[in-house]
Amino acid sequence: MKSIIHSHKSVRQYSVRTVDDATIVKIVNAAVRGSNTGNMQLYSIVLTTQPKIKQQLMPLHFNQPMVEHAPLVMTFCADINRFSHWCKLRGTEPCYDNFLWFSTALTDTVIAAENAAVEAEFAGLGICFLGTTMYNAEEIANVLNLPKGVVPVITMTAGYPEDPELPLTERLPYQAVLHFETYKDYTDSDINKYYNGFENLDKIKDIVKQNKLNNLAEVFTQKRYTKTDGDLFSKKYLDFVKKSFTMD
Amino acid sequence: MKSIIHSHKSVRQYSVRTVDDATIVKIVNAAVRGSNTGNMQLYSIVLTTQPKIKQQLMPLHFNQPMVEHAPLVMTFCADINRFSHWCKLRGTEPCYDNFLWFSTALTDTVIAAENAAVEAEFAGLGICFLGTTMYNAEEIANVLNLPKGVVPVITMTAGYPEDPELPLTERLPYQAVLHFETYKDYTDSDINKYYNGFENLDKIKDIVKQNKLNNLAEVFTQKRYTKTDGDLFSKKYLDFVKKSFTMD
Repeated sequence: MKSIIHSHKSVRQYSVRTVDDATIVKIVNAAVRGSNTGNMQLYSIVLTTQPKIKQQLMPLHFNQPMVEHAPLVMTFCADINRFSHWCKLRGTEPCYDNFLWFSTALTDTVIAAENAAVEAEFAGLGICFLGTTMYNAEEIANVLNLPKGVVPVITMTAGYPEDPELPLTERLPYQAVLHFETYKDYTDSDINKYYNGFENLDKIKDIVKQNKLNNLAEVFTQKRYTKTDGDLFSKKYLDFVKKSFTMD
Repeated sequence: MKSIIHSHKSVRQYSVRTVDDATIVKIVNAAVRGSNTGNMQLYSIVLTTQPKIKQQLMPLHFNQPMVEHAPLVMTFCADINRFSHWCKLRGTEPCYDNFLWFSTALTDTVIAAENAAVEAEFAGLGICFLGTTMYNAEEIANVLNLPKGVVPVITMTAGYPEDPELPLTERLPYQAVLHFETYKDYTDSDINKYYNGFENLDKIKDIVKQNKLNNLAEVFTQKRYTKTDGDLFSKKYLDFVKKSFTMD
């Protein structure tokens, strides 16, 4: 018997079927059950279903249509606001706003998010994660009314899949990411061996051709995730994170 | 039918039963199947089973005994080394070493790690995550021979549980972390309502008493995660991360 995880595919098109409240509660409870540092639960989940708010989020996710069409849009946020409020209310000074705690809260937020994703798929839904959340975090925070101490990390859209028979996406063979006992750095020949599978796919060759580039790596560096864009969005995200975390 | 996620507990004591290779491969393949940005798979997993290496890791995880006793110790690392090597080998300059890409790689690493955790539990294993990985990341990187571009994020110990009937750990009620449509900031009375469940547990009252403190929040700020320790380990982690990522 296989776990649901092995058949994960990102689902970007959803049927009109709505998701009932019991299923939503199960998904959120799965998130909450995740491992987390010191049981501090340094995350919050904002669930957006209203068309008006989804339309405000749309351009911030570069108009990816699932933001508007998915029944559920869940923004997972690293959150030191709630825990810090509790500390202060109990008369003690919270101290969870440095770089370590940013990284820790981010980790625990993503564990919660992935649990929600697996649970959603277990319930027959399809999900898609949107990394664009970090690109326009401040604008998303404004739409969702996030206070200081709450940083959007990742967004999950979810709904019943329009096409339940999507193919699995290629991945590197597991040997490419697994190291026994200690890390064995890659030789050029290792890299060729592991990436040739991708590079030789017809659909990848087509993408390279359409972009008039020489290879898939160039598609990444020159089209999909360029230095100019990356540096711009990185600075934006860091500036925003620094409103909540000292990052020392 | 409930998914395995709802019965997750951290397992710190393992039986002597070993984990077979087929199960290890299933766990790693579950990690690999996780959603990830642009299918770049910016993570690596170092699987440690040899007693000699586990003993070197032990003090770096503050001598938590499961590092020595778990059959499997898996260190999940954010990894731009492999992808960058591929870019260079294809004649193009990688540009994935800023703060955004650190946050992105960390996210994708944690998705992989949580998938591995859920898969391990599906196979009947118990797991425990060690956040101490970030506290001594550089020393762990030295033991595991990690090159530049590879940053340890989280460690998972796994094995068959010594006691399969552990109780679930308390969590905040899901209403405490879920916000409808937009974030509703917490009133003092919300905070009391959500945290009283924890605070009134006998075992929590005992911990507060043993520490001669006034409440659970003080246990966090004055004993468990103090500002002095946090700031020290934060600086250490940031200094180490900066050897691989510019953090601009």
